[in-house]
Amino acid sequence: MDGVQAEYARVTFADNSLYQVPEGLSDEQVLFLADILPTGFEIGVLNGEVKPGDTVAVVGAGPVGLAAIMTAKLYGPGRVVAIDLADSRLERAREFGADQTINNSSEDAVERVMEVTDGLGADVVMEAVGVPATFELCTELVRPGGRVANIGVHGEPATLHLETLWIKNVTITTGLVNTSSTPTLLKLVSEGRLDPTGFATHRFELNEIMDAYDVFADAAHTNAMKVVLSS
Amino acid sequence: MDGVQAEYARVTFADNSLYQVPEGLSDEQVLFLADILPTGFEIGVLNGEVKPGDTVAVVGAGPVGLAAIMTAKLYGPGRVVAIDLADSRLERAREFGADQTINNSSEDAVERVMEVTDGLGADVVMEAVGVPATFELCTELVRPGGRVANIGVHGEPATLHLETLWIKNVTITTGLVNTSSTPTLLKLVSEGRLDPTGFATHRFELNEIMDAYDVFADAAHTNAMKVVLSS
Repeated sequence: MDGVQAEYARVTFADNSLYQVPEGLSDEQVLFLADILPTGFEIGVLNGEVKPGDTVAVVGAGPVGLAAIMTAKLYGPGRVVAIDLADSRLERAREFGADQTINNSSEDAVERVMEVTDGLGADVVMEAVGVPATFELCTELVRPGGRVANIGVHGEPATLHLETLWIKNVTITTGLVNTSSTPTLLKLVSEGRLDPTGFATHRFELNEIMDAYDVFADAAHTNAMKVVLSS
Repeated sequence: MDGVQAEYARVTFADNSLYQVPEGLSDEQVLFLADILPTGFEIGVLNGEVKPGDTVAVVGAGPVGLAAIMTAKLYGPGRVVAIDLADSRLERAREFGADQTINNSSEDAVERVMEVTDGLGADVVMEAVGVPATFELCTELVRPGGRVANIGVHGEPATLHLETLWIKNVTITTGLVNTSSTPTLLKLVSEGRLDPTGFATHRFELNEIMDAYDVFADAAHTNAMKVVLSS
């Protein structure tokens, strides 16, 4: 099923799609493994093939971008750069592990990334927004031989500048999460190597669900990232 | 150096860029290993990660497309499909190993490829033309989870239909040949597993070079593919 908000739910073919929560973990420790964490990890970090020492640029510091930043750190990158238009999201990116932040409403992201990569560009660039401008920015940020991992859900085409990219030996990947990494992520959480509880910014009881939606919808003022409902 | 036409040439730093021709091979057996064969192999077949049983579609049956077709066969694909606008080039594609040819001036290439792949598309698609229309065709021919290997040299941007591709788990690669596969290709030629002599359609002495250029320039009438100069 695609999702549910209820006290109890019957999950058909549960043996094929559910994982047992390891002993001793709280709901909030595992809640975000249902979607955003494996999405950032599989479609961003694994498709991007992050390696030790890499410069990793993540365009978009919403929940999925933050999940990509958090899980990129597992591979020992040299530097993780978060790029976004909102300072509030960039602050959060630092909490989630970004070493450098660039607000590209006021700064030239390409110039800033070139400065710290000897003019080459980032080894791995992840797109976590889903609009043509950010995808095109990713293809400018990537170094020759590098990888662009698209995570964003797009509604319209982008321009692919093959006249410069054909010679750059770049790899571009797209994808929808498989959640095949869930056992790995569960192990990391239960060993204390990964703490996704920071995604939850607000908590409501199930019978306060309408208030919860109001808070989530007004994220610009409430700074809501993920709103947790419990019964 | 980028290229030379002369009886003798001094190659600077030759130890770093030249390979010795194995005993017993003729000039024409190794001539095309200097460029088109490793280009089709590395940027098409290796970047495309052709595997046994794969359906491989090659868009463009010029010399580099033919090199990709010829070297794709090394990996035991299930079916190699050549797509081009000219029947004369498609005939040659069959000689170089294509199992199926599609003339997309009169046939719908996407429809034809879907017919033979249970509606999924090709596992690996290679672009060997270098214009936006053929690149965009490649992204329509590829199956979910498949790979598009761009070999073509492009002069303008293409449209990337992320609104359909974001969810398809596709990988797109670009690149310029490294010639790091030259030792492998030399071994294949010297063991008789690969015969690139079919690329040579015309032969001239070095002092007939102006005639040679005329024949090469008028390929539409002379059917010239590669013109060999010797002294």
